[in-house]
Amino acid sequence: MSRCVLRSRHCSVGACPAVSVALRGSSTTPVHHQVPRQVEKPEIDTTWQMRALPLKLQQPVPSDLEIAQAQEPKDISEVAEELGLHSHEIDFYGRKKAKVSLDVLDRLASEPDGKYVLVAGITPTPLGEGKSTTVMGLVQSLGAHLGENAFACIRQPSQGPTFGIKGGAAGGGYSQVIPMEEFNLHLTGDNHAITAANNLLAAAIDARMLHESSQSDKRLYSRLVPVVNGKRAFSAIQIRRLEKLGINKTDPDSLTEEELGRFARLDIDPDTITWQRVVDTNDRFLRGITVGQGPKEKGAERQAQFDITVASEIMAILALTTDLDDMRQRFARIVVASNRAGEPVTAEDLGISGALTVLMKDAIRPNLMQTLEGTPALVHAGPFANIAHGNSSIVADRIALKVAGRDGYVVTEAGFGADIGMEKFFNIKCRASGLVPHCVVLVATVRALKMHGGGPKVVAGAPLPREYVEENVELARAGCANLRKQIENATKFGVPVVVCVNKFKQDTPAELAAILEEARSAGASEAAVSDHWSLGGEGAVDLAKAVRRACNQPSDFRYLYNLEDDIPTKIETIAREIYGAAGIELSEQAKAKIDTYNRQGFGNLPICMAKTHLSLSHDPERKGAPSGFTLPIRDIRASVGAGFLYPLVGTMSTMPGLPTRPCFYDIDLDEKGNVMGLF
Amino acid sequence: MSRCVLRSRHCSVGACPAVSVALRGSSTTPVHHQVPRQVEKPEIDTTWQMRALPLKLQQPVPSDLEIAQAQEPKDISEVAEELGLHSHEIDFYGRKKAKVSLDVLDRLASEPDGKYVLVAGITPTPLGEGKSTTVMGLVQSLGAHLGENAFACIRQPSQGPTFGIKGGAAGGGYSQVIPMEEFNLHLTGDNHAITAANNLLAAAIDARMLHESSQSDKRLYSRLVPVVNGKRAFSAIQIRRLEKLGINKTDPDSLTEEELGRFARLDIDPDTITWQRVVDTNDRFLRGITVGQGPKEKGAERQAQFDITVASEIMAILALTTDLDDMRQRFARIVVASNRAGEPVTAEDLGISGALTVLMKDAIRPNLMQTLEGTPALVHAGPFANIAHGNSSIVADRIALKVAGRDGYVVTEAGFGADIGMEKFFNIKCRASGLVPHCVVLVATVRALKMHGGGPKVVAGAPLPREYVEENVELARAGCANLRKQIENATKFGVPVVVCVNKFKQDTPAELAAILEEARSAGASEAAVSDHWSLGGEGAVDLAKAVRRACNQPSDFRYLYNLEDDIPTKIETIAREIYGAAGIELSEQAKAKIDTYNRQGFGNLPICMAKTHLSLSHDPERKGAPSGFTLPIRDIRASVGAGFLYPLVGTMSTMPGLPTRPCFYDIDLDEKGNVMGLF
Repeated sequence: MSRCVLRSRHCSVGACPAVSVALRGSSTTPVHHQVPRQVEKPEIDTTWQMRALPLKLQQPVPSDLEIAQAQEPKDISEVAEELGLHSHEIDFYGRKKAKVSLDVLDRLASEPDGKYVLVAGITPTPLGEGKSTTVMGLVQSLGAHLGENAFACIRQPSQGPTFGIKGGAAGGGYSQVIPMEEFNLHLTGDNHAITAANNLLAAAIDARMLHESSQSDKRLYSRLVPVVNGKRAFSAIQIRRLEKLGINKTDPDSLTEEELGRFARLDIDPDTITWQRVVDTNDRFLRGITVGQGPKEKGAERQAQFDITVASEIMAILALTTDLDDMRQRFARIVVASNRAGEPVTAEDLGISGALTVLMKDAIRPNLMQTLEGTPALVHAGPFANIAHGNSSIVADRIALKVAGRDGYVVTEAGFGADIGMEKFFNIKCRASGLVPHCVVLVATVRALKMHGGGPKVVAGAPLPREYVEENVELARAGCANLRKQIENATKFGVPVVVCVNKFKQDTPAELAAILEEARSAGASEAAVSDHWSLGGEGAVDLAKAVRRACNQPSDFRYLYNLEDDIPTKIETIAREIYGAAGIELSEQAKAKIDTYNRQGFGNLPICMAKTHLSLSHDPERKGAPSGFTLPIRDIRASVGAGFLYPLVGTMSTMPGLPTRPCFYDIDLDEKGNVMGLF
Repeated sequence: MSRCVLRSRHCSVGACPAVSVALRGSSTTPVHHQVPRQVEKPEIDTTWQMRALPLKLQQPVPSDLEIAQAQEPKDISEVAEELGLHSHEIDFYGRKKAKVSLDVLDRLASEPDGKYVLVAGITPTPLGEGKSTTVMGLVQSLGAHLGENAFACIRQPSQGPTFGIKGGAAGGGYSQVIPMEEFNLHLTGDNHAITAANNLLAAAIDARMLHESSQSDKRLYSRLVPVVNGKRAFSAIQIRRLEKLGINKTDPDSLTEEELGRFARLDIDPDTITWQRVVDTNDRFLRGITVGQGPKEKGAERQAQFDITVASEIMAILALTTDLDDMRQRFARIVVASNRAGEPVTAEDLGISGALTVLMKDAIRPNLMQTLEGTPALVHAGPFANIAHGNSSIVADRIALKVAGRDGYVVTEAGFGADIGMEKFFNIKCRASGLVPHCVVLVATVRALKMHGGGPKVVAGAPLPREYVEENVELARAGCANLRKQIENATKFGVPVVVCVNKFKQDTPAELAAILEEARSAGASEAAVSDHWSLGGEGAVDLAKAVRRACNQPSDFRYLYNLEDDIPTKIETIAREIYGAAGIELSEQAKAKIDTYNRQGFGNLPICMAKTHLSLSHDPERKGAPSGFTLPIRDIRASVGAGFLYPLVGTMSTMPGLPTRPCFYDIDLDEKGNVMGLF
């Protein structure tokens, strides 16, 4: 398998093809999609020759696992060959998944990017409105039905909920990524690598404090820079620490006593530690713990907690990094605490950023899988959408955009509602990548709109009230206030919006028609009903054509705020413009943190709001499009390595629990070794 | 890659080829290696056509990582093809490692096994005496220099020590498994899968106790057997629990109130919980913790601890299981606590054994790698050698024995000194597998023997005292008491012993000659000096030839004790026969546990002693071959899923710590992306 495709494309008349624009600056200046200069290369058809996998559609639609297991995926080597990947650019992990090397980006550096499509959603019910399913249906339609080069870029789910209550996240019905067992379980071990890296750093913090507490400066120094073969020498990471401290010496015997103390003693203030341990398990008993109660650590005990792995800053870094070197620098910048003088203590100070990079060197490569219809999908990173930015990785999107080529499509997904996931996609992810999106697909459901229109509460696990299973056009129309606001939010970034009404079996033609009408009148470029859940890509053809048209419209992408704005201004801009708030209210703690971050030099980071996804406001009970409220900012925290500040609006749980009957009761292998009970 | 090798061999005149004998019984009855009946098959040369990788030997010997990185490994697909594996039997994980399917065992079921060689060691210094290095040197010699089919089967190391103080465990010098970075880091994720499975079970225990504490029997029952689509139904695992409880009903609505309560309420006594959480990180602050201090779990808090992943019973099960179904049954039998009536509570009672199996379904397949000279190695499982049995997996050994074929060799390693690792290999691992070993290689070093002869203390990290770097034949000869005792221990199992003196650069000819003489006079079948560390397989040719001769000697394998012996008798047999003790002393706690295990039906399990490896006795300071001491048994614990009881002789640490300057200070990627700083 080693096929080199000569890539070149040229400009189609009347359209406005994508150009990737370096855009790491802070301004909100509009960026137009420009028409590139005609390149003197032979015209070659660069459309992939994909073998589509036919669906055997059944009614009623079987369970997700039954559908997934009824489809024999292509060997991933076949997919890689169809994409024109070179053999040294791909590493197989078993037969159905593979890691793609970032070397692809070097080979295709001079090629234009494909169209970049974001799938976001209106404010959802607790059941979710099918964004992942829409991503899958849309790429299946573009790739297997319209003959376009089309990539899905999606997040890897946490393994915790798979065994808890939620089940997997591979899409659903006839729009899925397969094999869904691989997707929902270990995959290629990226989340496990994050756990290992995160916890090595956590162990290093406590161990360092313990060793500092029992040793003099001189003793500490002599252990940190030991005599090996008769000689003391600094390691490379120690020389970087010396430089940071302004000590320009490389001979360990030349440090003064004062320098030696400053170098050796991190003097971490235990009350300021923000770095927590993680497990990829729903373990509520680790939400609040005391560590250090072993006989040899007594006296050093302290309060701590475990978060679920996907909440780790390492995960956010994986999602936002652009290459190995950038990842290493981000790890170095991670702030784990302050010292007693109030200065930030970093992973680099602990001497550990190289080791973290080594632990994550394979995880940085995106995972190639396929959809139910055999089109390609890159699965990579899955950061929380509240305390982090909730988007899949930049490196996966970049690779996909290059491999898809100028006329191809890359569909990526933002977690939660558009007020959260999409806003962070634009202001954080696109700012870090420099990539410019071509259109936003906004997923709505009749069910969610009825809830916003005043329907009864929707509760996971309980049967849906009558309002949701019988026709009620007025209720759905009333709920379109939320849809309108989210359309408005997207257009504030200058990007065309395609509304996708994700069809459920109880939806009636009148309800669907009303929503399409509302969407168009609210400023959506396009609006389509899509039935990919029960029909696969065939059910999303209208949506796919709408997306294709929208991507060829001129766009005018801009960020919402400048990085140089002060912290309260940035927060208030998001609160007013996106949430509809009248203003914000900062707690004393939040104000103190703002002072700290300004003093420590982190004031220019973008903002990653940690807010409920169940309302545009901070109150999950306020549906529709609330306005006039004041958004309370309880606290502000920093993920300096990932590169954002995250204001806390309310309390965010970073560790789910297991219910009385977790779904693991149904999970087992059958006699042939197939997984049962996942969903 | 799909080559089918027609396998058949016949009996070579005068030799005694191996026959795998089913031997799961409990008796100590001798098992002779018999000459199989002449099979009527065409004679075909089944020797692998391996491409050996030549070594570019340098003096002085470079660092392990430099040696490893200077050798370009074959693609693992080439190794798999050389071994005659079929394409559906192998899954690649990148280019240099692969997972081997247990289907190989079905295909080769009727073929005879190869020779089964165990590498064990004398009582070591804290620095280790090079057992792993000897395994590598021996297979490199057998395979690349003597033209035999030779497999190494080794343990996967914990990732914790790689970043702590010890470094990796891939062998050393010119006898290593490569790529050593892969070996020492995530490999194919087996240890991560163990962490995930272990911690899911731990989370389930605490969550279940919490839910039971707040719900009535009826409420609990109605949640455990919920109405789905208008109907209640038991899951398969719940029906098995009903059967265990003697409730022969399948209709959830037919249970009496008493039955419903017994089914729904596990009633775990929190003081009896033995299942701990794990991380694969050296995190000493997790040795003693309090869990359940979050606001929603308050009142349910309890003392707990984290162990390092390799100490998990899941790891011991992986090492001892024979196939997927057996693994599932072992998971089901895991005892996590007792209920308030004193009955064991199992993973099956918690409804989780299927989910554990799903998490471990890939981990059960051994990992194919290669030695520095391109011969095959299977890396699989790495259980602790004190609270568990310290041997690599049975499935790896079985696959290797079949693939090597009747005239081939499989060299496997037992952790710690022979009094621990070898004794457990014979009495626990061979009992579970039914496999019969052909010879034991006992690794000794001049350094360790001098220590046993009365030399000064050997301390990791400190320079070696003069006695160890200058010739001192008398000291070495005096230390041979330990070697003699370990030879005697091996011969008690009826297996020929080959003593390997693992040569270090400061050893003198007179010292080496004295040890060979002592070894032979103590009953070793063979004794050889081996210099594989500085010369690779070439340096181990004498050893390899000695092993080849020993494997063709008649042997008379037997276990040391009967499973039906009562628990104190089994412990005392090991203490007297192997350690040289005069007797044992059981604490009150140990006596109480014996009563409990007898009552719960676990009295017939084999014994897995948790004793220091630094002395034949329980006191690490007593070197040589102590005798006349009484072995104190502080406590006895049970790993019912793995299938053994483990008496605690002293305190065993199950969580290492990080030193002031962990080796992560040196670990990083260079500008080409190569790992630096591992050793």
